[in-house]
Amino acid sequence: MGYGGRVARTALTTRAAADTLDAADPLAGFRARFALGGSRRLYVDGNSLGPLAHDVRAALEARTDEWRDRLVTGWNEWVEAPAVVGDRLAAAALGAAPGQTIVSDSTTVNLYKLAGAALDARAGAIVADASDFPTDRYVLQGLAQRTGRELRMLETDRVAGPQPAEVEAACADSAALVVLSAVNYRSGALARMSEITAAGHEAGALVLWDLCHAAGAVEVDLDAAGADLAVGCTYKYLNSGPGSPAFLYVRSGLQDELRSPIWGWFSQDDQFAMGPTYEPVAGVGRFMAGTPPVLALAAVDAGAAMLAEAGLARVREKAAALTSLAVDLHDERLAAFGFSLGTPREPHRRGAHVSLRHRDAWRICRALIERADVIPDFRAPDSIRFGLAPLYTRFVDVWDAFDRLAGIVESGEHEAMDDARRRVT
Amino acid sequence: MGYGGRVARTALTTRAAADTLDAADPLAGFRARFALGGSRRLYVDGNSLGPLAHDVRAALEARTDEWRDRLVTGWNEWVEAPAVVGDRLAAAALGAAPGQTIVSDSTTVNLYKLAGAALDARAGAIVADASDFPTDRYVLQGLAQRTGRELRMLETDRVAGPQPAEVEAACADSAALVVLSAVNYRSGALARMSEITAAGHEAGALVLWDLCHAAGAVEVDLDAAGADLAVGCTYKYLNSGPGSPAFLYVRSGLQDELRSPIWGWFSQDDQFAMGPTYEPVAGVGRFMAGTPPVLALAAVDAGAAMLAEAGLARVREKAAALTSLAVDLHDERLAAFGFSLGTPREPHRRGAHVSLRHRDAWRICRALIERADVIPDFRAPDSIRFGLAPLYTRFVDVWDAFDRLAGIVESGEHEAMDDARRRVT
Repeated sequence: MGYGGRVARTALTTRAAADTLDAADPLAGFRARFALGGSRRLYVDGNSLGPLAHDVRAALEARTDEWRDRLVTGWNEWVEAPAVVGDRLAAAALGAAPGQTIVSDSTTVNLYKLAGAALDARAGAIVADASDFPTDRYVLQGLAQRTGRELRMLETDRVAGPQPAEVEAACADSAALVVLSAVNYRSGALARMSEITAAGHEAGALVLWDLCHAAGAVEVDLDAAGADLAVGCTYKYLNSGPGSPAFLYVRSGLQDELRSPIWGWFSQDDQFAMGPTYEPVAGVGRFMAGTPPVLALAAVDAGAAMLAEAGLARVREKAAALTSLAVDLHDERLAAFGFSLGTPREPHRRGAHVSLRHRDAWRICRALIERADVIPDFRAPDSIRFGLAPLYTRFVDVWDAFDRLAGIVESGEHEAMDDARRRVT
Repeated sequence: MGYGGRVARTALTTRAAADTLDAADPLAGFRARFALGGSRRLYVDGNSLGPLAHDVRAALEARTDEWRDRLVTGWNEWVEAPAVVGDRLAAAALGAAPGQTIVSDSTTVNLYKLAGAALDARAGAIVADASDFPTDRYVLQGLAQRTGRELRMLETDRVAGPQPAEVEAACADSAALVVLSAVNYRSGALARMSEITAAGHEAGALVLWDLCHAAGAVEVDLDAAGADLAVGCTYKYLNSGPGSPAFLYVRSGLQDELRSPIWGWFSQDDQFAMGPTYEPVAGVGRFMAGTPPVLALAAVDAGAAMLAEAGLARVREKAAALTSLAVDLHDERLAAFGFSLGTPREPHRRGAHVSLRHRDAWRICRALIERADVIPDFRAPDSIRFGLAPLYTRFVDVWDAFDRLAGIVESGEHEAMDDARRRVT
């Protein structure tokens, strides 16, 4: 294990030092398994969309062959895929025992299903975070309006993320549901999942974790944290492709008590009897809805398998080391140019991305993409995110990306960029 | 156009006559564009899952290359894909002008979104069909329970399908929403869409059509029928793969009035501003929810393109001819063995599949698959469905499939099959 010297601050941040870290990296071999090409491009946006892995492409092709060869009879196995892939993903990335996780639908739809079910089962307010990802806030706004619940938005410190005491205070006087992200989408702050879950439980609330920026980046342990519910996507650190299906988790002991608001045929007991009356199947399968995306499930399975092979402990340690290098480079190269760090400084309090705040972040981000072949992303109003996914990001990539970024702000090259925000990325 | 002699009853049904029809078939060239192989297998279940087309595989591979090469910057175009592909599908198969159709999520989730929106906008009961596909009935049962609405289930003649007068009667005393399938999943009965829609409107209801078994099989004309809402899948006659994303249609004049119950970030006005408060975008895009399935959308686009190239009028005419041949063969070869026809006899009152009813349908279906290399499907309690998708089904395939089926029931071979319904198909 070669990351220890990085997590503890070193005296001088040089490219040679980054090279040394790469040479000792036990995960270094994984990079060749991604189709990242040999170009000058530096991809530091795996926290938004992971790149294509050869294994994932092969899995998609194999599943397409299965469709070709088996046609409709393939459904005899495919019908189990959301649960089978869910269990594999749970073991690889979520710290969840089998029978609690399925993969299907989008994060948004899964959040709607689980939050809706929780509100049917518990009285009281909804507690969420004003700094959380938009779709979480919007889904909860809609459910709050529909169910007449109070939606209490934490105004957390954007860099530090939500604290247990804040959640405890917000839950006072009856709370039904707490929804928070384990890793904040902008700052990368890692929430104290166990303590916050306990605070929610103390108030009688169910606690739902959004793991989009956590799954595959940090050591999530849903079962140990006592989490009730979770959702998350697979197109970031699980590298399963743009719009690949999301997962959902429902704690075993809670499954029989909850019902999805969407009563679909894939959640029906004895589905192919096609009987007259809806009766949800026992277990987490009751949170399925319609026909699952069979081809895409093969990609998620392959993405989860790579993560299982790498091992979450190593992934997590490398993430801490990569982001520590990024923090050091921010301090050394960028702080003098109007940047501030939008990410916790303590390595184990953050995920695998860092956020660099600057009043001209949009134009700097454009210059990085268009002039410097560095691909990060911009998040309103003032953040450039560098996602440092451990499976394929090298320490020299971090060094080079910051070097190019420093070059842009040193030269003022970004000032020539268009300020109009017409593009998604 | 070589199908006319088939639609009108001919004197004698021979394999040579089927050959003649194939020789004159203007769509005959499409079969070679599917990966159906040269085996003895006869696939007559395209009404459940369409086969792999070479164009679809190529589209999936090209989109995967795009992901590899463009990474996150691909989203600048992909973000429009649900609407772009929706418009192409609308033109190819739905009779819908642009700006009313999107492709994303499953049929179940889309039905939930549209039916939920309709119930928010209209007071009164829900009218549906006890013979309709399970997920439609289940979704509506859930919404009825949640909103305290009466769910009036038509007890229609299973073969004939719902009639305008029945809908009119069921809508008496205030109806909010009528949900029916354009083509019944078991019988193949084609509903009189314009007349039924008018009957619903007369009662002040919104009318939602499930097009799963109609899109790509009959000449759907949503705009001309005055339909308000529609949903449907793309894995049957659009050949886009198992679990490929579904479509939804919202009539232009209705879009601003309705809101999805699922408030997701892909339906947010100025999405990437990621603002604090949900405000749905104008237009049909407000019925998006989460991140759309980008790879699968390429498959739907390719499937729709093939249908557009074939032309819906020819597809529809061939479907009538293929199913007419099937009806004749049922009468000549099967009726004496306890079969009855579960499909309308008038060619223009049915879709592209026929239903053969028999008290021993399950075991006969197993024998067809396991002993005769004919792949239809079973639908409880007593139906074998033969889907005769016009793009790749030959008239001789119909003849051969019925010949093998007749061989099984003549010999009693099915009586040795296991009656346990452990398999999906």
